[in-house]
Amino acid sequence: MNASAPRKPVIVDALQYNKPERARFKEWRDGGVSCVHVTLAIWESARETLSVIGQWNRLLEQNADLIALATSVEDVERIVASGRTAIIYGFQDTSPFEDDIELVEIFHQLGVRIAQLTYNVQNRVASGCWEPDENGVSKFFGRNVIAEMNRVGMVVDVSHCTERSCFDAIEYSSRPIAITHANPSEFVGTDIELNRRNKSTALIKRLAETGGVIGLSMYPKIMRDGSNCTLETFVDMIAWTVDLAGVDAVGFGTDFYDGWPESQIMWWRAGRWSRESAVPIKGFSRWPSWFQSPADFPNIIEAMEKKGFSSEEIAKIAGQNWLRMFREGFVPLSAAKASAA
Amino acid sequence: MNASAPRKPVIVDALQYNKPERARFKEWRDGGVSCVHVTLAIWESARETLSVIGQWNRLLEQNADLIALATSVEDVERIVASGRTAIIYGFQDTSPFEDDIELVEIFHQLGVRIAQLTYNVQNRVASGCWEPDENGVSKFFGRNVIAEMNRVGMVVDVSHCTERSCFDAIEYSSRPIAITHANPSEFVGTDIELNRRNKSTALIKRLAETGGVIGLSMYPKIMRDGSNCTLETFVDMIAWTVDLAGVDAVGFGTDFYDGWPESQIMWWRAGRWSRESAVPIKGFSRWPSWFQSPADFPNIIEAMEKKGFSSEEIAKIAGQNWLRMFREGFVPLSAAKASAA
Repeated sequence: MNASAPRKPVIVDALQYNKPERARFKEWRDGGVSCVHVTLAIWESARETLSVIGQWNRLLEQNADLIALATSVEDVERIVASGRTAIIYGFQDTSPFEDDIELVEIFHQLGVRIAQLTYNVQNRVASGCWEPDENGVSKFFGRNVIAEMNRVGMVVDVSHCTERSCFDAIEYSSRPIAITHANPSEFVGTDIELNRRNKSTALIKRLAETGGVIGLSMYPKIMRDGSNCTLETFVDMIAWTVDLAGVDAVGFGTDFYDGWPESQIMWWRAGRWSRESAVPIKGFSRWPSWFQSPADFPNIIEAMEKKGFSSEEIAKIAGQNWLRMFREGFVPLSAAKASAA
Repeated sequence: MNASAPRKPVIVDALQYNKPERARFKEWRDGGVSCVHVTLAIWESARETLSVIGQWNRLLEQNADLIALATSVEDVERIVASGRTAIIYGFQDTSPFEDDIELVEIFHQLGVRIAQLTYNVQNRVASGCWEPDENGVSKFFGRNVIAEMNRVGMVVDVSHCTERSCFDAIEYSSRPIAITHANPSEFVGTDIELNRRNKSTALIKRLAETGGVIGLSMYPKIMRDGSNCTLETFVDMIAWTVDLAGVDAVGFGTDFYDGWPESQIMWWRAGRWSRESAVPIKGFSRWPSWFQSPADFPNIIEAMEKKGFSSEEIAKIAGQNWLRMFREGFVPLSAAKASAA
C-alpha cells in the first residue's frame, strides 16, 4: 500500500474451516485479520462438539497472545484493540442440535454465535445444494430452530443451502440472516465445479433488502476461472455485487482452509451418511496466487483501493457490515432475561 | 420466632435433589431459603446432562419470579436481594465428565459449580460408600479431575465417597473441599440404615483444618433415630459438630427430595450398571415432623436460638460458611485468563 493509504480497515472473515493451529493464527496476524468465524462442527453430534469446544479452550489458552474468543461485538472490539484476532464460534450444519430444540441455547451458552442450517444435504432443518430437489426449511424442527436461534441470538447462515431453503430462512427468520461464504452465480457463471453453491441475483437482492450480508469467497471451486481467477476479476465481483445489493450487504467469507490431511475431504463430503463422496474428490484446491492464505488480505484491500472504492466503502465491505449485523444478531431477543438478577 | 428475634439469616441448603418444579421453588420462598445447590446428574452422560440443563433453562425462564441461577457468590447476593432463591448447579457423580478431562471446564461454562466425585459406587475417579473395599481417588483420571476442578473453579464434594476417597480428595485438592450432605458417625451411631454414608470424627476434623465445610442433613436414613429423630437431637448434633470442628466448618445440606415417582429410586440405586438395587429399597423415607419440607427451615433456626446459639453463629451455620467457601471456590485459579480481552 502506498504512503497515503488510509488507516487499515477492520477485516472480518465470515468463514474459515482450518485445522485449528498456531500457524493459522499467525497468518491472521500477518494479514491484519481482525475477526474470523471458525467452524466447530459439520456432522458432529452434540457430544462430539463438546470435545471440539474443549480443544478450542486449550487452543485459546495456549495462543492467548494471538487470539481470543468473542461472543459479542464488544468482545471483538476489545480483542482487536489488544492487537489480537477475535474468534467467533460457528457450525456449518445444525447437526450438533441433534433433534433437541433446547440444544440451540446450550450451544449459545458455550459461545456459538452462527449456525448454518445444513451443509450441502437435506437434514431435519433444511436442504442443501447437492440435493437434486429444491426442498425448503422443514415445517416443524426447521422453523422452530430458526425461531430459537432468533430468540437466543445465533445468526442463521444459509451458504450451502438450496435456493428455496435460503428464501424460506429469510422469510421465517425475524432477524437478518447471513450468507457467510458464497458468490453470485450471475457473475461467476455456472460452468464451475460447485455451481450450485453460488447464489442467484434474486436471492442476493432479497437478502440485502432484509438487512442480510453475503461474504464473497476466494474458494477456487466457486470463483470465475477457478484457481486461475485473477485479483482483478475478484475485485470486479465485489463491485458487481455492490452494484446489485448495495454497499451495506457485501463482506468477505473466504472459505479458507489449511492444515488438514487429504483424508479429511471424505469427512466433509460423506460424513457418516455415505461410504462414498457425494461429489467427485479431486484433492485440495489450489488457492489463487494473490490469496495463498489470509496473510494476503492486504492484496485485496490494495486492489480495491486501485479499483476506486472509497475508504468508507472498503471499511464496510472489509468488516463493518458483518460487525453491524453481529452487533444486533448475537444478542438475545430479550437480553434482560439472560441476566441472573 | 419471638419479637426480639434477629434479622433472618441467609439460608444456604448445600444439597437438594427434587424433581424440579414450581411447588419446590415456592417451599423455598416460604422457608426463607436463600440458595439451594441442586443436582443435575448422577449417572447421566454428558449428552443427557445437556438436556437436563436445557430443562433448567426453561424452568428458570418460567419461574423467574421465584428463582435464578447463580454462578458466583455475587450472583447469590444479587438474587437474594431481589427476594428470590439462588440456584447452584451441581452433580452428585462425575459421570457427565465421562472419560474426558475437557468436559470439566465445559460444564463449568454451562454453570456447574459443585461436583461429587462419585455417588456411592466405584467409578473412574473415586470410590463410594456402598463398596466393601476402602478404595481411594484414582491416580490418573481421579487426581486429574480434582486438579481440573480446582483450576476452573468447581468445588469438590465427597458426601457419598468412601472414607479413604474423602481423605485422598482433601490431600489432592489445592482448595478446600465440601461434604455437602452427611452427618457425623460418632454422634449418629452406626445402627442406622445407611451408616456408611456418615463421616468419621477424624475426617470431619481434617476437613475443618483444611477450610472445608460439612452440611448436616435431615435425611432420615442418616440421622440418629431415623424419621423419629427429634428437632432437639438434630440441634444437639449441630452443637456437637461445632464443638468438634469449629463454628466455621458446619452448614446445612438437607438432602431433601420430593416430587419423584417411586420408580425413580431404582435409578438412584442401580443406574444402568445393575438390574437390581445395590441396597434394599423400602420406598421414600418419612421426613421428620419438624422438617416436612424446606418451608420448615424457620423451625430449625428457632430451635438453634433456644439452644443458645448466638445470631453470629446461626448466620455462619445457616449460610455464611458455605458462601465463604463458594466465594473463593467458584472462581477459576487464574481468573484473568477467563476474560476475553
